[in-house]
Amino acid sequence: MDFKVELKKKASYIEGVLKEYMPEEVGYQQTVLKAMNYSLGAGGKRLRPILVLETCKLVGGDEEEAISFAVAIEMIHTYSLIHDDLPALDNDDLRRGRATSHVVFGEAMAILAGDALLNYAFDIMLKGSIGRENPEKYLKAIYAISKNAGIYGMIGGQVVDVESENKKIDKDKLDYIHKNKTAAMMVGCMSAGALVGGADEEQLSCIVEYAEKIGLAFQIVDDILDIVGDQEKLGKNIGSDIYNNKSTYPSLLGLEKSREIAKELIVDAKKCLDGKFENKEFLDGLADYIISRDH
Amino acid sequence: MDFKVELKKKASYIEGVLKEYMPEEVGYQQTVLKAMNYSLGAGGKRLRPILVLETCKLVGGDEEEAISFAVAIEMIHTYSLIHDDLPALDNDDLRRGRATSHVVFGEAMAILAGDALLNYAFDIMLKGSIGRENPEKYLKAIYAISKNAGIYGMIGGQVVDVESENKKIDKDKLDYIHKNKTAAMMVGCMSAGALVGGADEEQLSCIVEYAEKIGLAFQIVDDILDIVGDQEKLGKNIGSDIYNNKSTYPSLLGLEKSREIAKELIVDAKKCLDGKFENKEFLDGLADYIISRDH
Repeated sequence: MDFKVELKKKASYIEGVLKEYMPEEVGYQQTVLKAMNYSLGAGGKRLRPILVLETCKLVGGDEEEAISFAVAIEMIHTYSLIHDDLPALDNDDLRRGRATSHVVFGEAMAILAGDALLNYAFDIMLKGSIGRENPEKYLKAIYAISKNAGIYGMIGGQVVDVESENKKIDKDKLDYIHKNKTAAMMVGCMSAGALVGGADEEQLSCIVEYAEKIGLAFQIVDDILDIVGDQEKLGKNIGSDIYNNKSTYPSLLGLEKSREIAKELIVDAKKCLDGKFENKEFLDGLADYIISRDH
Repeated sequence: MDFKVELKKKASYIEGVLKEYMPEEVGYQQTVLKAMNYSLGAGGKRLRPILVLETCKLVGGDEEEAISFAVAIEMIHTYSLIHDDLPALDNDDLRRGRATSHVVFGEAMAILAGDALLNYAFDIMLKGSIGRENPEKYLKAIYAISKNAGIYGMIGGQVVDVESENKKIDKDKLDYIHKNKTAAMMVGCMSAGALVGGADEEQLSCIVEYAEKIGLAFQIVDDILDIVGDQEKLGKNIGSDIYNNKSTYPSLLGLEKSREIAKELIVDAKKCLDGKFENKEFLDGLADYIISRDH
């Protein structure tokens, strides 16, 4: 398997699915619909939706049942970027190679487009779950997303990230930020995929462990790329952590040590799946990709 | 029944329940938890949660099953107020008699507190629904909330409201705003209460009609109070519609005509329940209260 070719194929499949779920840009409220679609359509790696579907298949589930979750997770990810980029937060004007939402649509509309995407994500998951067998399974899967996206997950991480600008923080707090701001959503989407796919408790706990580790590694690599990455490939401004005076793995531990930790996390992540799942080739490849990526 | 005494009793019951569901203010992310609780604890009429529980009982359901929905709806309402008050939107510094969230916690935290409340509302509904009989019923009830809170409901209305500032709009567009910005959430909470309570299709449709009418009347009265109301009783600045140059029922049709329309809506709303439900006394009283209220 050529992993990068596989990944590209899967991402392009997600692009198609996403388009089907984007709201039609009609009605009095069409500005917000345009703003939602503008940010949703800006590309990106589509890693999270891929993770949902792959985890569902890993445990023997039917990918079709998890599609609305894959779409929803990308909407939640996109809303978090729109709000993160706002002038009151990170004040970024470039994202995925495009002007950010508030630059194009104004601050009010960017705030509302973010709200709308978060809310629409739940719409889609709920609508996609009603009328299916085993509704309890879907309640649990939606809850896995919601819990990991909220104050005890992604939003918690964002809050502490924002408050830590221009402050020296210790590694404990930095780990809290990374685990919540980034890894929690990986845990959320893999848990949802696993639950929809019918995972048992033991499978779920291995998957959560894998997700935590690749999620943390992913963020450490993000921090590294913010220093040594290529702005064009990344599609966003580099140096923004230094500019915003943020504590990161490299700023606390140095580039080399950070790379080492990321590599260890990836080795450990792959161990979580070892001997427990057939057909784990893609998720092994994904783990390796996370530290070798240049964008 | 003395309606106002009943209403006060029910609101104070909701206050108690809300407190139980508020997140504990501990952890690295405690600023956002404080900001959530600050706005949640600011009082208000608690009409929406009361509507959830009353509708559940109206159709013969067990109020206890709907409590997480009552709490969630107040969280969604509160998030919408926090974001609405932001400088990029209505720029209000006073709400429910207190400084607004962004005045106290700053813009970044107010944005995140709003996001957090919306997300937490789903957490609570989902957690409150898992492990119960008839999970399908709960999926439908949560979807009723989500649909009415989003781009085809409340957010849609907010978007058009924001875009209509300093513009003369026609009654069609104004109706779109009022129906979506305000009435949709009444529809959402009464639908959820009805679904959890086990309403049949016909009951649900009468209840939706009642909710649409009292919702529209509620907003017309809000517009009227923004002109003739008492700032102290309202707990918010009056004259903000005129200041923001907003089209309202009074500005398009005059105060008298607006009052007339609101009264007609209330008469019609009560007719929707007529002969279909025993024990509709409280909802009749609520309809009357909506046009007689001074805050």
